[in-house]
Amino acid sequence: MSIETIKIFDTTLRDGEQSPGASMNTEEKIQIAIQLEKLGVDIIEAGFAAASPGDFDAISKIAQRIENSTVCSLARAIDSDIKSAGEAIAKAKMKRIHTFIATSTIHMEYKLKMTPDEVIKRAVRAVSYAREFVDDVEFSCEDAGRSDIGFMKEISDAVIEAGASTINLPDTVGFRLPFEIGEMVKIMSDYTKDRAIISVHNHNDLGLGVANSLEAVVNGARQIECTINGLGERAGNAALEEIVMSLKTRKDVFSNYTTNINTKEIYPASRLIATVTGIEPQPNKAIVGKNAFSHESGIHQDGMLKNRETYEIMSPESIGLMKEDTLVLGKHSGRAAFKDKLAKLGFNLELDALNKSFERFKIMADKKKDIYDNDLRALVTNEMTKATQIYELVSLQLMDFSDGTPSSVVKIRKDGKEILEAGIGEGTIDSIFKTIDRISGFDGKLLDYKVNSVSEGKDALASVTVKVAFDKKDPAIIGHGLHIDTMLASARAYIGALNSYLSMEGMLKKRNCDSRETV
Amino acid sequence: MSIETIKIFDTTLRDGEQSPGASMNTEEKIQIAIQLEKLGVDIIEAGFAAASPGDFDAISKIAQRIENSTVCSLARAIDSDIKSAGEAIAKAKMKRIHTFIATSTIHMEYKLKMTPDEVIKRAVRAVSYAREFVDDVEFSCEDAGRSDIGFMKEISDAVIEAGASTINLPDTVGFRLPFEIGEMVKIMSDYTKDRAIISVHNHNDLGLGVANSLEAVVNGARQIECTINGLGERAGNAALEEIVMSLKTRKDVFSNYTTNINTKEIYPASRLIATVTGIEPQPNKAIVGKNAFSHESGIHQDGMLKNRETYEIMSPESIGLMKEDTLVLGKHSGRAAFKDKLAKLGFNLELDALNKSFERFKIMADKKKDIYDNDLRALVTNEMTKATQIYELVSLQLMDFSDGTPSSVVKIRKDGKEILEAGIGEGTIDSIFKTIDRISGFDGKLLDYKVNSVSEGKDALASVTVKVAFDKKDPAIIGHGLHIDTMLASARAYIGALNSYLSMEGMLKKRNCDSRETV
Repeated sequence: MSIETIKIFDTTLRDGEQSPGASMNTEEKIQIAIQLEKLGVDIIEAGFAAASPGDFDAISKIAQRIENSTVCSLARAIDSDIKSAGEAIAKAKMKRIHTFIATSTIHMEYKLKMTPDEVIKRAVRAVSYAREFVDDVEFSCEDAGRSDIGFMKEISDAVIEAGASTINLPDTVGFRLPFEIGEMVKIMSDYTKDRAIISVHNHNDLGLGVANSLEAVVNGARQIECTINGLGERAGNAALEEIVMSLKTRKDVFSNYTTNINTKEIYPASRLIATVTGIEPQPNKAIVGKNAFSHESGIHQDGMLKNRETYEIMSPESIGLMKEDTLVLGKHSGRAAFKDKLAKLGFNLELDALNKSFERFKIMADKKKDIYDNDLRALVTNEMTKATQIYELVSLQLMDFSDGTPSSVVKIRKDGKEILEAGIGEGTIDSIFKTIDRISGFDGKLLDYKVNSVSEGKDALASVTVKVAFDKKDPAIIGHGLHIDTMLASARAYIGALNSYLSMEGMLKKRNCDSRETV
Repeated sequence: MSIETIKIFDTTLRDGEQSPGASMNTEEKIQIAIQLEKLGVDIIEAGFAAASPGDFDAISKIAQRIENSTVCSLARAIDSDIKSAGEAIAKAKMKRIHTFIATSTIHMEYKLKMTPDEVIKRAVRAVSYAREFVDDVEFSCEDAGRSDIGFMKEISDAVIEAGASTINLPDTVGFRLPFEIGEMVKIMSDYTKDRAIISVHNHNDLGLGVANSLEAVVNGARQIECTINGLGERAGNAALEEIVMSLKTRKDVFSNYTTNINTKEIYPASRLIATVTGIEPQPNKAIVGKNAFSHESGIHQDGMLKNRETYEIMSPESIGLMKEDTLVLGKHSGRAAFKDKLAKLGFNLELDALNKSFERFKIMADKKKDIYDNDLRALVTNEMTKATQIYELVSLQLMDFSDGTPSSVVKIRKDGKEILEAGIGEGTIDSIFKTIDRISGFDGKLLDYKVNSVSEGKDALASVTVKVAFDKKDPAIIGHGLHIDTMLASARAYIGALNSYLSMEGMLKKRNCDSRETV
């Protein structure tokens, strides 16, 4: 029997970005797309072009940058959406439009208020129009998990006839069990045969997204939609890393299937996305969680190490997690060693970014004795994904007394001028942020504040993530800061969010539609 | 066909506690056990009595406290382990000893260095001896997922004959696919029939723990071992909440099965365990993640709300997540309203704890405008699980200048005396912790530092979790601090870890064995 390649369709930048709090700026999206290309995903769903000017801009920049993966935009079955999508991806080497409409009775009746015949007509029109922009069109039966199979056959016939080559069957509400997904895929793939590729898109509301995807594969699905770290609406999508590593680890069972994924890029992809979104996989997350390959420390390892397989079903190295995440560089390391180490971690920086990162590295190395792989990853990611620095932190002073009032003095550079202000707050962080607000003139609403230590020890880097709404009408913005001093990292994170907001001002507003109206 | 009750065996306090960084103090374990009892779990695996005096102590206190769930201790198939287990649970109303030995060739050969016959003998001896302490004995074939089915039948015959009534088949390395677990369970349950209950214990290394557990149920398993939030070694265990809610949400398929779980206690249990361990479920975690029931904000909700089922397969209320997690109490709320609100959240405090919590609430309400459900949950949990306060923070001052040196002044009360010290550090947090070390005389090694905001806004409560090793020979200790001011919360967390360490001193050391040598 011949070996079938299962296409991996990554929707981290679209469905993943729809996770509350996962919005990204354009530079961050581009860096993620580049990493996804390295990872070897077949299709990158780069966004939803019609959703906002910011989405459109990011998709078109990604389209110009990516060479080895197909770049895709989502579009509702509406002419204006499809036009946006087609224009955004116009310059891509390989491009796809992904259009969708709901096919379940509950959605057609309550949401669309359309008859099944009207739905088919709309779908056909959408696919035909999309074909005017691209050769590769995917059609999704939104809420396929609750749709009538006869109706899905009918609509599939129509959209294939109109030019769709992939039929996606999303379990939009994530409530199907593996055997049900298997049955649905079997019927549909037996029906469409080589007229179209059957794809699945499983949400994880019951924790079954991966099992459902694997069951789809053995029943004829040849494309899996998924996300890094399982990001996505609500409980997220099936996690790319879990699906791919299940297929690989259990190739005794899945001997007929393969993917184009370079699994050694899984860990770098996971770290990049966690850093950018500030959404850390829980330590007990399969494959990429902090504990996935570790055991409680201080244990007596005894004879175990003699045969690693006793407890390990895959090696950390197979996902690109280097065993030696120990001391890597110190204050005396030169630029060559620095560049070399970054290359090993998969970062190939252009000269300017390399210089800036090296500068930051030297400052860090001056304060921090041991610098680990993850410290470097965080530092470089931070540097690479930074928006234009309209506001720049020059210095910070603060005082805090219990039963007193915390106060901060912040100096910020803007347009070459330095602005100095003082402010107070309920807590130290509050006083810093209020002082920055005083300088910028914005009244930011802090929606989330998180600190994680990047490595161990009292001189570990603090990685601060803030989520701030600078304007009620716009979506909240994520900012990141990295420093040994948590206070400085916090100030940088808040200023980072501000810069990110300003760099995207006017491009953020989402059109007046339900963002849940997706697959 | 009659409806079968699937027993839920919770191992959060045993396998969950084996997650790196999830170690808990005795008071925390007791509070968790009480919540698990409320949740309706059939069996609480309270720990591994022989592992350390601290484990023994916690199990015996839980045994005395719990009335409606069976209290269980793990024990290797060694007399001394079984004796410890039997003694620790002696006072429980319903009690079980869970003993195990590896049955896979790879484990028997490389780890145990025993022949299959020797393994059977050891298992029989263990079960017979355990029966001298309790009537209810569970036997696990460690690494059942890689064991020969014929050998498992043989050893099951022997241990059932010796008095075991539950046979557990753990997929110790977490690499089995659902159909494989189904086949194994089918064969074993057809074989043992009503001589024993077949149980499964699925690890989640490939993200398949829940699917594997459900497949076990339909193939004859009548006990599922699992943990809250999916905690556990490496990628953790199958998550209790996902299994239970899958069975409930899809009762159209699982109509023949039920559990004794009161699903409204799922969310309180999840919050308690996240707070105590400092391990937050990722926002996209199924059922209990922050985003599991939410959609990107700012969306136009349109007709969707007319029919909730359009996108919701279960209600937040069904897991005890109250819809109205909005403003609940303010500074003018009295003790009665406070007590009433706590009762609604499931906290029934004794007078002393109620008074202390109310005191802390009033201080918080003075600084913080809006107090939400999760603020109260965090505050009360913090109060209830606190170890004896040997060291108590009186006041904190700090100063920080970029390009300067952060400094702290800490005043601490110990044995009625106040001690004042100053110190410097690489960052503000570092300066606080170093100053506390100077007072205590310990040299704590900070292994992890995390801050989460409990609710939204600049006056949100900061919840700080630290993980500190005070002594190389002892396991690291978790400490928590809660305050509007992140600096004060950090100081409290570090002192909390210190108090927790001192309260358990001498009881922490694990015996010289591999903690991985478990199911």
